[in-house]
Amino acid sequence: MSGPTFQELIQRLNAYWGERGCVLIQPLDLEVGAGTFHPATFLRALGPEPWNAAYVQPCRRPTDGRYGDNPNRLQRYYQYQVVLKPSPDDIVERYFGSLKALGVDPQVHDLRLVEDNWESPTLGAWGLGWEVWLNGMEVTQFTYFQQAGGLECRPVLGEITYGLERLCMYLQNVDDVFDLVWTHGPDGMPVTYRDVYHQNEVEQSTYNFEVADVPELFHRFDACEAEALKLVGLDLPLPAYEQVCKASHCFNLLDARRAIAVTERQRFILRVRKLSQAVAESYHGQREKLGFPGLKREAEAA
Amino acid sequence: MSGPTFQELIQRLNAYWGERGCVLIQPLDLEVGAGTFHPATFLRALGPEPWNAAYVQPCRRPTDGRYGDNPNRLQRYYQYQVVLKPSPDDIVERYFGSLKALGVDPQVHDLRLVEDNWESPTLGAWGLGWEVWLNGMEVTQFTYFQQAGGLECRPVLGEITYGLERLCMYLQNVDDVFDLVWTHGPDGMPVTYRDVYHQNEVEQSTYNFEVADVPELFHRFDACEAEALKLVGLDLPLPAYEQVCKASHCFNLLDARRAIAVTERQRFILRVRKLSQAVAESYHGQREKLGFPGLKREAEAA
Repeated sequence: MSGPTFQELIQRLNAYWGERGCVLIQPLDLEVGAGTFHPATFLRALGPEPWNAAYVQPCRRPTDGRYGDNPNRLQRYYQYQVVLKPSPDDIVERYFGSLKALGVDPQVHDLRLVEDNWESPTLGAWGLGWEVWLNGMEVTQFTYFQQAGGLECRPVLGEITYGLERLCMYLQNVDDVFDLVWTHGPDGMPVTYRDVYHQNEVEQSTYNFEVADVPELFHRFDACEAEALKLVGLDLPLPAYEQVCKASHCFNLLDARRAIAVTERQRFILRVRKLSQAVAESYHGQREKLGFPGLKREAEAA
Repeated sequence: MSGPTFQELIQRLNAYWGERGCVLIQPLDLEVGAGTFHPATFLRALGPEPWNAAYVQPCRRPTDGRYGDNPNRLQRYYQYQVVLKPSPDDIVERYFGSLKALGVDPQVHDLRLVEDNWESPTLGAWGLGWEVWLNGMEVTQFTYFQQAGGLECRPVLGEITYGLERLCMYLQNVDDVFDLVWTHGPDGMPVTYRDVYHQNEVEQSTYNFEVADVPELFHRFDACEAEALKLVGLDLPLPAYEQVCKASHCFNLLDARRAIAVTERQRFILRVRKLSQAVAESYHGQREKLGFPGLKREAEAA
């Protein structure tokens, strides 16, 4: 095997971004569709306080499941997310530095940046962005956040999202995600992505597409929406936001169950967006009430 | 500041256990009360296949919240979990080695092992165990799993659970968890546990104790129970198990809302245990059908 193991890849990214002042935080312990949903991105993007963080996030995308049969598609995979606020001028150089730390020389490899502005309709967020293609495979997405939860981002947050499995497939030179070497066991034998997650892909795909209880998911979507609005009314944006994440995941499962008609989709998306916006305003208000503590930290450093 | 930052502590534990053949896995993206609930412990403890893993798990214990006012108690904190199966003879020496890697010399510090057998009534699991006390503070729990989900563990799995905040408080010599230095920002100034999580403790404590929707939680407990049983009937133990985790968290929230009478508690615990046992049997059956792939790996290595 060439290249780092799957877990070494994460360890190296942690070492690189940790040394550069990022808070290494753990994944959100809720089912979400992207690293952007973690409060360390979506909420910390709001308001004037500086914030630098890096983390892995398991992403659940029920419609992407392929019962473990596809070498490239998973209903659950890992993103590595870096957020830098304010976005530094040399963010692209820093990113290239991280690739070098992984053993990829940007001078040698076929590295292309393709413009691709990003939008999350449910989060009311959008930004100017680029995809990074490495020898013909998308491995990273860059975004300069312009809005989140419908609020303008000042200063702009820079987001770097690595697709860990794809990047690792490139580094290990394998064609099937399940062949990725995760690590070597105490006996020196490789433990693969297959050993760790194949059974999960098969069973969860079955659950997502065939079994998940549709009436209960509709009920839960409504209940999470009501709970989120109640919590916003009580100035509790952090628990409110978790209800938004749960509602969003219910929507994704209903989508996999083909329970939402094309004409209904947009209405559901708008309901989640409305919640995200209410939470964003509430969170910004709470940070303001606390006197934007992150700005005080900065003033003390100056 | 003396000692490692909070994130360096995790990085060092990852380096130590990763080098010793552990699969470094990400936290479960569901709300759970302990690292033991992660399928990488509870399910992998079942059956004859070898398994070695290490991970951080955020643990949510709603009744332990103190609105961010207590220097020692949190409704959400981090465990670092190591599982070794079969449990190696030198597991205690390996643990001491990890402390040395963190800068704690077991010869110098007041380190005591106190017998404390462990039981999880909801998981139908128990084991012979010890608490490790470091200068008067419990920092680790050792357990040799005898049963999980009502099934006997053969071979026995050894579990080491570090309380990350407590261990870090000891290493940094601070009395208040919120004073822990998580890392240093790009400006060189410390970022503390307070900066990262204090607002969350205040708001989530309010939610857990005062706001969470009791009738909806009772409904959800029933719905998750029904879904888990349906999934077990379809030989889908992995998604079934996630429903068990969700039911268990509903129970913990209802407990924080004081919605479960003393006389009812036992009945709820037994309902969760019954689910855990059904899932455990189903999982063991599925692994058997797959021919216990982990045993094949081992045979190839021999």
